Parts: sequence; C-alpha cells; structure tokens
Amino acid sequence: MTHQPSDPKPQTLTETVIRGELMVPGCPSRNILRSMTSQWGVLIMIALREDGTLRFNALRRRVGGVSERMLAETLKRLEAHGLVLRVAYPVVPPQTEYSLTPLGEDAAEHVAALADWIEVNLPLMLKD
Amino acid sequence: MTHQPSDPKPQTLTETVIRGELMVPGCPSRNILRSMTSQWGVLIMIALREDGTLRFNALRRRVGGVSERMLAETLKRLEAHGLVLRVAYPVVPPQTEYSLTPLGEDAAEHVAALADWIEVNLPLMLKD
Repeated sequence: MTHQPSDPKPQTLTETVIRGELMVPGCPSRNILRSMTSQWGVLIMIALREDGTLRFNALRRRVGGVSERMLAETLKRLEAHGLVLRVAYPVVPPQTEYSLTPLGEDAAEHVAALADWIEVNLPLMLKD
Repeated sequence: MTHQPSDPKPQTLTETVIRGELMVPGCPSRNILRSMTSQWGVLIMIALREDGTLRFNALRRRVGGVSERMLAETLKRLEAHGLVLRVAYPVVPPQTEYSLTPLGEDAAEHVAALADWIEVNLPLMLKD
C-alpha cells in the first residue's frame, strides 16, 4: 500500500491510500482479491452481470452448487466492499434483491473476462 | 461443459469439450478457476509475468508472505494446467527455474488486469 508523502495531515486510511500493493502481505487489497476471486464470488458477479437483478433464491439456482450459507456469506462480503447492492422490500414474506453497483459492474467486467478465458481454453488445460 | 453433438466417436474428454461452463457444478473449469484465482495463484502468475523466469527462492521473496509449502503446491497445480513451466538443472545444489508458458502468459494477462483493477480501486472499496 502506498501513502501520499506530501499530505501533512492524513485523516483516515482511505484518504491516504493511492493504490493497493498485492505483493505486500499486510495490504488490504489481498482481502478484496480473496473475496472477488473466490469461486462463489466470481460466479455470483458473473450471474448478476448477466441477469441484472436477482432475488436470493434465483441467484442460488443460477450459481450451480452453492449452499445457502456460502451464498449469503459471499454476498455479504461483496456488499461490504461496495460491489453488490442489496435491497430489502418490507413485504410478507420478506423479499430481497441483489444487483451490482456501478463499481461492481466495473469489477465484474474483469472477472468475466478471466472466466471466459478459462471456459474457452479449458480443452488446452485438460490436456495430458 | 458442452459436447460436440455431431461427433460420432468421442475418443477422450479433451477432444469433445468445446468450452467449459463455470455455472455447472461438475465442470472441470471450476478447478482451473480455483487454482488460477487462489491468492497465491494470482500473485505467482503476476510475479512471473513481470520478472520472466525466477528460481524458487526468488519467487518466494517476490510473493510476500507465501510459505514454502503453499508456493510449491500452487506451482505444481499451475504446472499441471500447463500455465507454468518448471525447468530443473542437474547441478549441485539442484537449481529449478519457473516461467509462464505461452498459455500461462495469456492467462496472466487477464489475472493481472483484474489485480490491477483491485489495486487502483482499493480506496473506493475501503470506504465506510
């Protein structure tokens, strides 16, 4: 993580960080990397990128094999990083919808490019 | 995973796979996704992309915080998927060098783009 050397009175962490440094063990960018590139993180972002807005159960059906607990936990992490927007409607039974934030859309583009590369090149990687 | 419907005599898995389907639980693309996007997988690919060829210990110093065991295991998986080339020289003491294969270079480009996005946008994701 790099800090602005000329800033005389850094107020908070977020004001002084210019960019993360993934090679440095203590850098918080590593947490973001882990949650964005976890198997479920990747698949959830791709599903929301393709489908727009999804309810919890629809998202669970879309991302084959994810458990209710893992889906809830991963969504919570993505929401905490500002990548996913959660909207709860005060109806009975409760209804919750998930979508990507503009920042999440931007992130999902890179995640989707990587996922697409893996899908296309899978035959080459399965060789031998 | 999609199979070629018109192929009358599929010989091996790799001959019939057109592309992976990450949303399908049994698809082998999920294993590749996990090893390419594991924290150490990402950082190793970026280090090799930037530095070209590295010996084990130099790679370990480059990727801050990785243990010998995790580095060895991750390299083995990346090698198995054809992304990393391992060359062992028959000298005393033994000398081993690692580099990206052409396929690995291609993959690392997407991984690096995602990592770069995370580093640049870290301040936005640390807000609140």
